[in-house]
Amino acid sequence: MSVISDIQAKLGQFDAWLVPHEDAFLGEYLPAANERLAFVTGFTGSAGVALVTKEKLHIWVDGRYTVQVKTQVPQGTEIHPLHETPISDFFADLPDGFKVGFDSYCVSSRVLNQWREAAPQVNFVHGANLVDACWACRPAMPSAAGFALSEKLTGKSCQQKRSELAKGFAKKAQWALLAQPDSVAWLTNLRGSDIPCMPVLMMRALLSSDGHLKLFVEQSRLPADADLGSDVEVLPPAQLNSELAALKGKKVLVDEGLTPALLVDELKASEAVVVLGTDPALIPKAAKNAVEIDAMRETHLRDGAAVTQFLCWLDNVVASGERPDELVLAEQLESYRKAQDDYLEPSFDTISAAGANAALPHYNFRNGAPSNLPQNGFYLVDSGGQYRIGTTDVTRTIAIGELTEEQKHLYTLVLKGHIGLGSARFVKGTCGHQLDYLARAPLWAEGYDYDHGTGHGVGQCLSVHEGPQRIGKAANNYPILPGMVFSNEPGYYREGHFGIRTENLMTVEKFAAKGDRQVMCFENLTYIPIDRRGVDKTMMSEAEIAWFNDYQAEVLAKIGPRIDDNTRQWLAEACAPI
Amino acid sequence: MSVISDIQAKLGQFDAWLVPHEDAFLGEYLPAANERLAFVTGFTGSAGVALVTKEKLHIWVDGRYTVQVKTQVPQGTEIHPLHETPISDFFADLPDGFKVGFDSYCVSSRVLNQWREAAPQVNFVHGANLVDACWACRPAMPSAAGFALSEKLTGKSCQQKRSELAKGFAKKAQWALLAQPDSVAWLTNLRGSDIPCMPVLMMRALLSSDGHLKLFVEQSRLPADADLGSDVEVLPPAQLNSELAALKGKKVLVDEGLTPALLVDELKASEAVVVLGTDPALIPKAAKNAVEIDAMRETHLRDGAAVTQFLCWLDNVVASGERPDELVLAEQLESYRKAQDDYLEPSFDTISAAGANAALPHYNFRNGAPSNLPQNGFYLVDSGGQYRIGTTDVTRTIAIGELTEEQKHLYTLVLKGHIGLGSARFVKGTCGHQLDYLARAPLWAEGYDYDHGTGHGVGQCLSVHEGPQRIGKAANNYPILPGMVFSNEPGYYREGHFGIRTENLMTVEKFAAKGDRQVMCFENLTYIPIDRRGVDKTMMSEAEIAWFNDYQAEVLAKIGPRIDDNTRQWLAEACAPI
Repeated sequence: MSVISDIQAKLGQFDAWLVPHEDAFLGEYLPAANERLAFVTGFTGSAGVALVTKEKLHIWVDGRYTVQVKTQVPQGTEIHPLHETPISDFFADLPDGFKVGFDSYCVSSRVLNQWREAAPQVNFVHGANLVDACWACRPAMPSAAGFALSEKLTGKSCQQKRSELAKGFAKKAQWALLAQPDSVAWLTNLRGSDIPCMPVLMMRALLSSDGHLKLFVEQSRLPADADLGSDVEVLPPAQLNSELAALKGKKVLVDEGLTPALLVDELKASEAVVVLGTDPALIPKAAKNAVEIDAMRETHLRDGAAVTQFLCWLDNVVASGERPDELVLAEQLESYRKAQDDYLEPSFDTISAAGANAALPHYNFRNGAPSNLPQNGFYLVDSGGQYRIGTTDVTRTIAIGELTEEQKHLYTLVLKGHIGLGSARFVKGTCGHQLDYLARAPLWAEGYDYDHGTGHGVGQCLSVHEGPQRIGKAANNYPILPGMVFSNEPGYYREGHFGIRTENLMTVEKFAAKGDRQVMCFENLTYIPIDRRGVDKTMMSEAEIAWFNDYQAEVLAKIGPRIDDNTRQWLAEACAPI
Repeated sequence: MSVISDIQAKLGQFDAWLVPHEDAFLGEYLPAANERLAFVTGFTGSAGVALVTKEKLHIWVDGRYTVQVKTQVPQGTEIHPLHETPISDFFADLPDGFKVGFDSYCVSSRVLNQWREAAPQVNFVHGANLVDACWACRPAMPSAAGFALSEKLTGKSCQQKRSELAKGFAKKAQWALLAQPDSVAWLTNLRGSDIPCMPVLMMRALLSSDGHLKLFVEQSRLPADADLGSDVEVLPPAQLNSELAALKGKKVLVDEGLTPALLVDELKASEAVVVLGTDPALIPKAAKNAVEIDAMRETHLRDGAAVTQFLCWLDNVVASGERPDELVLAEQLESYRKAQDDYLEPSFDTISAAGANAALPHYNFRNGAPSNLPQNGFYLVDSGGQYRIGTTDVTRTIAIGELTEEQKHLYTLVLKGHIGLGSARFVKGTCGHQLDYLARAPLWAEGYDYDHGTGHGVGQCLSVHEGPQRIGKAANNYPILPGMVFSNEPGYYREGHFGIRTENLMTVEKFAAKGDRQVMCFENLTYIPIDRRGVDKTMMSEAEIAWFNDYQAEVLAKIGPRIDDNTRQWLAEACAPI
């Protein structure tokens, strides 16, 4: 009996059962025990949602996964493009009284509200998770102890962070529910290994407006050197529900986009006053202090040394006539990262993409047989590391053999966009949607574009895709603040032929301008050479050439001392001025 | 007895009476009979809202009017900054059950919903307009007949527009309520003189999904040559309510931001199904067809000839040592416009601002004694014309006597921003917030900025501030389309010293790029010389210098044939390359 028919057999009162990718922590990455979408459908992408009806399996995935999903789901599955025909449209077309069963731990309150608004005739009914009931050999939940980050890495104690956060919301609410594990990790200066690619413990917390903390995690999982300060209760996760029930009459701050619908419903049932707002840890976590940024800088120098060694190795291998496959390349790259102090794991699944494979911006060589490098063309590698001190994310597109003039032309357009955004100066209050143009302008002028965002936030030894700030076409109304970290990753993709992306991480700092407004600019965090062999210098302005040569010189100055003589000699050539 | 105490005496069941600037058509400009805010408070600005409580008068105005409002309202009035402490905050702090009386014809459904959400404890109660009850010598409502635009100016008959609009919403609704007079004016190809600065008749309409039109306007107001096509009923405005009441069970499309709350309430009371969406005329009206754009081009050549004559006259007057005042200058400017064919009236109150007055971006010389031109400094003039064939809006900042190096520096930064936006190329789907950066970048890089939007839409012989598109810092989610018209108006303002703004109107057209995406660019509509005496050429790139010289040469080529020999000689010098 297949999982699908098993679920169908158990539907009972429901007309369909909903299987979101997310678990109760609503994040991008999941422990194996919560990979329910993959268990039910076979689809292993990092986003999507399925619906098991009495008749068949439906699945919604985004443009990154249109090819992959077809090879993974059972025959007869109906595949829907997630953005073009969203599941809310499907709900809207269901008959009156249709009962969709779902585990309302695994859907945010905001998303559930949107569905209910789009499809008022549908009954969305919470029930015990049907997938879990069908999952005989479900992997164990994580249970390893976490680890603490010292104040030398975080700059602030948990006590101090609690007091500052509490002051921030005291006017609005008596309690704040922190439902996201990375918010709680940042607040407590604790990390863990519960979730691949994101070093956190699966914790939630209630913070009072006088700084009192109720931390929901098994005591056994806290490291001995955890320093939470005074006025903290560590409570078993299962006790959260009774604590929420005890908040009757209290104003409780909830971020409805980051909180399971079930917890919001429980708060309402307990007659607490739900105050909607932003998770109070979100902005302080995103706008990093000087100590956090220093740790991120050091992380990037270690990571830079590792990736530089890989690029040197790659050049030698290619020069010797070999064309290794994407798996070999990804493993070689990680071997250099593993040799760095404090390295934990990749910060996301490495995109190691040879030739035409790189035309899929989120290509994963593990979804099929890995390809070998082309004789001539591009190799795109987008990868990052989680270190105990910080997180990295970098993309380089490497010339293998000879490039065509057109490939150089497009590589240079992407580089010009990267430089444009990296050189931006902007006033206080600017939001990410206002800067997106800079990275696209050179491509747009010639009728090219890329269908993904330009810049996402990055945590410190936390999520490599951290909100709330974002640089993209769509509106993002969180002003850019000093200490925020952004990726800068314009690209160009030609289906069936090649893909190009150049990505650094940058942080935001103040810029001393003579005018009367406060100005900010970006400082590079990533120091890894950008392949000069793809550059058509005749397309670049003097300012762009100066930016490029300065950057490469800085790479040599910062990374040179961290690598062996042979690699340094390679790097010096790789960083020679254009 | 003052108006305020008269209203207070009539409050009755209400704790306060609300006086918005808007009338039942919710627009920026009003007939004299509906200038209720000015009648009650004395404040003559184009936006604001007042609340008459039992104790006192409160008024909310935006940053443009903080100086002016103090000189106009009665002593003891409490003045609130509209954006920093909005009236919704004030409502939120009112006691439980507080009764705010208001005429729900004069508040949009969206705004009322926002107030109700912000202040659930307040009772917002519709009542017969208390202001009108206190207004003994209220001016008469407009009654003049309108005029028709021929298809040579509009490109499409009313019949054709009705059919196209109806197709657009037929899937969603059986009827659409067009509550805005400029939407109805565009749909019917009718114009009028009911409202200063916006040549419309105060009409509403109901359009059915098969193209049937119920037009609510007195038959006597339609011109003899009105060509509405078949299947049109012209009904007295007072009959709208009974027509809405007859829509029981029908799906009716309503734009809640553009429709009085009262009409939406009436629809709901009649058990119609209110479908919220965009006014179906909004996008077709904004994205003008080739005929409409041709008419706008011709409008701008006439307007360019008029303004060029004014600038020539101004230079001669200044050279002779005279320094006329702002009123004289504004009247001289309008005298040239009045001499042009088809000129109707100004498209907004002319901003004629000498020296430090221009530091107020929306300075109005009629709010005090007009100032004389400075011996040395800037004169800023922002003005526009309504013509039977189109609408204009242009700002020029003119060097009077000698400028300082710093004035030239800032003038050039503004010009660079203007050129940057004017030169933009962008892909299909781009929204205004994505391009705003271009106009600000040169200022931002040195720590300067301006606190207003960069570009607004403009109608054809309709509103000079036409939505829904907009270029600004804030998100605007209406993609830019070919045929849309935008202003391009970066500026710089130094309080107490001077103000600079350079504004052209532009339309959007397709650009043939070699890539795989559809690209658009701007085409200038405005042809009026930009004062070269403010330009510091050393600050400009070669591309910027070429743009400027090309533009000035085009001005000479297009406007030269439309002016007399003396003016042409002056223009040739004004347009000489830098």
